[in-house]
Amino acid sequence: MKMTFNLNENERIDDLLAGGLKIIQNNTEFCFSIDAVLLAHFATVRKNYCGLDLGTGTGVIPLLLSPHIKHVDALEINPVTAEIAERNVQLNKLEDKICIKQGDLCQIEQYYKPKSMDFVVSNPPYRQINQGHINLLDGVARARHEITAKLDDVVKAASYVLKYHGRFAMVHLPERLGEIMVAFHKYKIEAKRLRLVQPKRDKTPNIVLIEGVKEGMPGGLTVEPTLIVHEDNGDYTRELLKYYYPDRL
Amino acid sequence: MKMTFNLNENERIDDLLAGGLKIIQNNTEFCFSIDAVLLAHFATVRKNYCGLDLGTGTGVIPLLLSPHIKHVDALEINPVTAEIAERNVQLNKLEDKICIKQGDLCQIEQYYKPKSMDFVVSNPPYRQINQGHINLLDGVARARHEITAKLDDVVKAASYVLKYHGRFAMVHLPERLGEIMVAFHKYKIEAKRLRLVQPKRDKTPNIVLIEGVKEGMPGGLTVEPTLIVHEDNGDYTRELLKYYYPDRL
Repeated sequence: MKMTFNLNENERIDDLLAGGLKIIQNNTEFCFSIDAVLLAHFATVRKNYCGLDLGTGTGVIPLLLSPHIKHVDALEINPVTAEIAERNVQLNKLEDKICIKQGDLCQIEQYYKPKSMDFVVSNPPYRQINQGHINLLDGVARARHEITAKLDDVVKAASYVLKYHGRFAMVHLPERLGEIMVAFHKYKIEAKRLRLVQPKRDKTPNIVLIEGVKEGMPGGLTVEPTLIVHEDNGDYTRELLKYYYPDRL
Repeated sequence: MKMTFNLNENERIDDLLAGGLKIIQNNTEFCFSIDAVLLAHFATVRKNYCGLDLGTGTGVIPLLLSPHIKHVDALEINPVTAEIAERNVQLNKLEDKICIKQGDLCQIEQYYKPKSMDFVVSNPPYRQINQGHINLLDGVARARHEITAKLDDVVKAASYVLKYHGRFAMVHLPERLGEIMVAFHKYKIEAKRLRLVQPKRDKTPNIVLIEGVKEGMPGGLTVEPTLIVHEDNGDYTRELLKYYYPDRL
């Protein structure tokens, strides 16, 4: 099928390589990365689950989750990317499964009811704003740095919106794992699954995937085998190939 | 040199495979495991450091650290293993470097001054006492389960005895990482290094190594490459061989 969808300046359509999904991205805004793909595969979801993506960007995580859940809301503060996310939902004809909202997760009570979601996912800005020189008006910087929302705000929002025993899955930097665990504890989310991601077998982990249960019983964290992205020769490992080319394996 | 050291019933002398060190162990008590060896190699120590091992057992960690530090105290609640630890110090002629004390880490202020140590290491009991059937009088059970000291007690004792910016390195179960992070935060030890250990490349991590700095700046946790113990064919990996047979590589 030839794509006839209208694109704005600087926009492109990429294959999501999963069940024929397509995604519009804007070259001048933050484009989705492997982190979002890993999180979508890591999160525990079920066919009857309704959930929320906090800081959805162009909506890649809801798109990837859509075949596996009942409904997902998605909140995005940047109006440019929120509008692209909305068009991505239309492009993939997923209006019945995904609902994009432009808004600030720090004001989550304005948009969603407390204890209303079975799951929450988030690929939030990773870096504290005291790190390096950044342009506060730049959309890419806002997606990468904690300008609009801090780690604590994200976990607080997730906790607010989760049902009792609902699940929160997040992707973040390993160097902030201590703060993540403390924030989970503060907002009564008990960490239950953790997985490190390394670029190669002998390289330092650069991504952490973590999932917790709202008001879960203390203890019982399962740390899963470290996910290696590339073989020593640079090829994707079998697990990554499964994520990107599920039909080829 | 032929060993002429007297052994009691059920005791044996093992090679520590590191600079000719020997260790007496008792077959009916808890014998040291790979965990202690990994911790001794993981902990940040310097030639001028004085430190403490909390729950030393037969003293394996002080023995392994001895070439690399100035002095190490070691506390052990079980009088049988504490006495073996004392003989291990004598066997290796390390009386000037290692001082074993029989006592309870929950009463640490009775034995050591606050803020007196450059580093603390601990391979504490891992399992909560609600897990499985255990004999409370059994020395092995006491070394494995939190009968005499809980995770919170160990971190509290470490924090008490550490100098400002002193380092606490601990080996524990990955499933308790959330609780570890929260206890570190509670007692003002900022996690700075973390390393998972997996039996094989595709196996779930079964050990976590973690090091924190007393009153360290928040953030900046370095998660190191996951340590793989065995190659797929069952051989020790190069890193493990380096720990056990440093002279062969």
